Amino acid sequence: MSKSRVVYTEISPSEFFYRNRDLAGFTNPSRALYSAVRELIENSLDACELFQILPEIYIRISALNDLQPDPKPYVIKVKDNGPGVDPKYVPNAFGKIFFGSKFLLRQSRGIFGMGGTMAILYGQITTNKPVIVSTSSDGKTIHTFELFINIQDNTPNIVRKAQHPANGETGTSVEITLEGDFQRASLKIYEYLRQTAMVAPYANITFMDPQGFITIFQRATQIMPKPPQETLPHPYGIDVEALKRMLRQSKQDTMLKFMYKNFHRVGKRIARKFLEYANIDLNRSPKSLNDDEIVSFVEALHNYNGFLQPDASCLSPIGEEILAAGINKELKPEFIAVTTRPPSAYSGFPFIVEIGLAYGGKVLQPGLKLFRFANRIPLLYDEANDISWKVIHEEVDWKRYKIPSDAPLAIITHICSTKVPYKTVGKEYLADRPEIERELKNGIREVLRRLSSYLSKKGSMEMIKRKINIYEKYLPLIAQFSTELSGAKRLPQYKKLIGKIG
Amino acid sequence: MSKSRVVYTEISPSEFFYRNRDLAGFTNPSRALYSAVRELIENSLDACELFQILPEIYIRISALNDLQPDPKPYVIKVKDNGPGVDPKYVPNAFGKIFFGSKFLLRQSRGIFGMGGTMAILYGQITTNKPVIVSTSSDGKTIHTFELFINIQDNTPNIVRKAQHPANGETGTSVEITLEGDFQRASLKIYEYLRQTAMVAPYANITFMDPQGFITIFQRATQIMPKPPQETLPHPYGIDVEALKRMLRQSKQDTMLKFMYKNFHRVGKRIARKFLEYANIDLNRSPKSLNDDEIVSFVEALHNYNGFLQPDASCLSPIGEEILAAGINKELKPEFIAVTTRPPSAYSGFPFIVEIGLAYGGKVLQPGLKLFRFANRIPLLYDEANDISWKVIHEEVDWKRYKIPSDAPLAIITHICSTKVPYKTVGKEYLADRPEIERELKNGIREVLRRLSSYLSKKGSMEMIKRKINIYEKYLPLIAQFSTELSGAKRLPQYKKLIGKIG
Repeated sequence: MSKSRVVYTEISPSEFFYRNRDLAGFTNPSRALYSAVRELIENSLDACELFQILPEIYIRISALNDLQPDPKPYVIKVKDNGPGVDPKYVPNAFGKIFFGSKFLLRQSRGIFGMGGTMAILYGQITTNKPVIVSTSSDGKTIHTFELFINIQDNTPNIVRKAQHPANGETGTSVEITLEGDFQRASLKIYEYLRQTAMVAPYANITFMDPQGFITIFQRATQIMPKPPQETLPHPYGIDVEALKRMLRQSKQDTMLKFMYKNFHRVGKRIARKFLEYANIDLNRSPKSLNDDEIVSFVEALHNYNGFLQPDASCLSPIGEEILAAGINKELKPEFIAVTTRPPSAYSGFPFIVEIGLAYGGKVLQPGLKLFRFANRIPLLYDEANDISWKVIHEEVDWKRYKIPSDAPLAIITHICSTKVPYKTVGKEYLADRPEIERELKNGIREVLRRLSSYLSKKGSMEMIKRKINIYEKYLPLIAQFSTELSGAKRLPQYKKLIGKIG
Repeated sequence: MSKSRVVYTEISPSEFFYRNRDLAGFTNPSRALYSAVRELIENSLDACELFQILPEIYIRISALNDLQPDPKPYVIKVKDNGPGVDPKYVPNAFGKIFFGSKFLLRQSRGIFGMGGTMAILYGQITTNKPVIVSTSSDGKTIHTFELFINIQDNTPNIVRKAQHPANGETGTSVEITLEGDFQRASLKIYEYLRQTAMVAPYANITFMDPQGFITIFQRATQIMPKPPQETLPHPYGIDVEALKRMLRQSKQDTMLKFMYKNFHRVGKRIARKFLEYANIDLNRSPKSLNDDEIVSFVEALHNYNGFLQPDASCLSPIGEEILAAGINKELKPEFIAVTTRPPSAYSGFPFIVEIGLAYGGKVLQPGLKLFRFANRIPLLYDEANDISWKVIHEEVDWKRYKIPSDAPLAIITHICSTKVPYKTVGKEYLADRPEIERELKNGIREVLRRLSSYLSKKGSMEMIKRKINIYEKYLPLIAQFSTELSGAKRLPQYKKLIGKIG
């Protein structure tokens, strides 16, 4: 039997995701259009927020040929007023998979650092058109690049470069031509924009659709969340590979210094105690640990229970005020409740859960609607797989709160973390982490309690009103009859009685 | 505002999957142990089947330290009698992500070509132990390699190499040390082995667990499915990138030859008709097409309805005989039905759906159990997300088949394809493709119909039996009474009557 059937080949990262684009949410023309739009918007918002710039995002989708039926080529243009991209990084940042600025321990919408490049790759393989990137990072010059991705090599292939004077403003615009299906994607795209506006009410978002209709999501607040910070790794999240790298790169000459300089929330006191626990000399050189010692050191890091929980100062939750502003703006409810849970952590990664609840008003329909967010991204696909759905439908005892099942209700969940535990590169839904589940459950119960007490107050108010109505109707008659019956000349002072009810 | 906050870096493929190992099913010690075992077994079975070798697979999981509680380091060893790996490919095949033998248009269990390497990577980052690979591809020499993956560079780092004489047999053994949780993983591992044995009854599989218990899944048939063949791409599955590569590499001097030499099921006649439809001169050189022509050519490939559907001769379904043998062996049911659907295709990829049904017997418990397989892999996680689950629970009208809801029932679904549309690198479940959904639905209805008619036959048989019992009991008495009443001397010939019932 010939062995020639086994052919070994190496493929590039671009090639891998080119072949398996379903993994990144680029499954078909409708889904691909949606994914491309969201990835570009997320990059723009991440950039603006990191530099505390109030975002102005402009999105345009236009058909190359209006008369052709879907699926067909569309041009997507997304333009922002962010910090811009240093021109020397543009080719790789847009034309190379696994090259990017998101490979840090810091909260951001992007987490795999490849969404934008995937959108460019998808455009290129369906329409053979280059991406056009125009960016200014200094406000003086706009640098324009047209480029393809050389998929087999995973390298950028620049086909045109140009420079123009900028008018003092920074920002980036990206234009991709791809085969899309707007008719099928449009509902999801509008929903995505509306929900993004809900959790980023400090942004102006303008969208022009292929028919030329313009939708503006206007800024509702000038307050921006504080920018997320990069953070040191927590001991619980360290594996052998990570520790080896840290030891190799360490500039400290003793293990004591190494411990309190390189780990999240490890000070001198904890470092000293831990090294005693791990049986490592405080004065040893970090570079002197051998392989076996490294393994037991990692074990000790995981088992020692004297470390502090990760703190969340590096995170950037939406905040109750901004979240409430966003919900009020988009859902205009009769009643609103928001709560931010205290910071918690899973496997060494800090996270914060925020819950919002909206009830009644003119926008909400009867029944429960769930809005899911993670690091401020609306998650619109695969709802039933998500941990929030699981908590709401399987773990909350709804009878306790006496909320009618057809109540016009929305629950908003937001999880922010330096590492959101997505189960897919397409960022559709979160894995079941018990720590996150617990916080979601507590937060949802909290807002449901508040709604429940609002409804019961409203209920007793209504009962009283009804009582008063009845008394107002019948007391005068009773008063009149009894006056007539008794032969008295004046009606009794029954009006005071009505005032006393309640 | 300083721009130093934006730091661009490039990461290697190993680094990407090291950081995002949840994506590949390496989420925690229990899941990682399970994933490592299955990836190694799948590689062994793929290799054996490609060379039509009746598989002998030996798996051993042992704890480094029996007394330590879980999670703890385990050694996984998987050994096969496959064709072996040419020693010159061993370092890259085991020490480099995106290097492998599975990047072909051919049915195989492995589809992303990275599962084995991920298991090695996970072992290394949790225990700092190298993988040990021993392989012989010529039957003369066994080559042993101990190696690490250099994660930052995505290159193999060989720490030991040795050679020993082989005893004439080929095969590969892989030994990985990783942090696992056998207590939590054991149920899934046993279930995985049992289900693998069910669809590969031509394999001998021996498993030794950490307590030293040995489970043997014995071969039940010598018949092996024919090996899968590599196939040419179908016109419907071609995008701009693929066409460009094909044109660039083409050895043909005319477009006519190019068409009928490079595409699946395109002969001269269809090639000619298509080129007329696409408005391309039959005699043009393939290398002369410009970018715009390439784009419209791809459009024409997708829109032309004169191509034949992909044929499935390249696929290797289990086959009704082997599937029935496997089900009989593992489930020992009272009634069995299997059906292989005719080949079909989605986006240019051929696929075949096979359905099995088992009812009653001593193994099955009351209620429905679903066994899902794709390219002969048992899928054990995320059942409720899977297309088979959706079809069974949402699209089949169970009332029609009059099967009691507590019937002891198992449904087995198997989908084989040159490209299984997994939604995750961890190969947990399949995306909803309407073409696959349709075939599943038809197949499931077919086996349910057969069970339904079996049950109704069995039901009427039982009814008849009950009737006969009643007659047998009362007819003699009636006969006796009536004989006495009429004063006759002999009983009537009622025994014949009983024989006639039914």
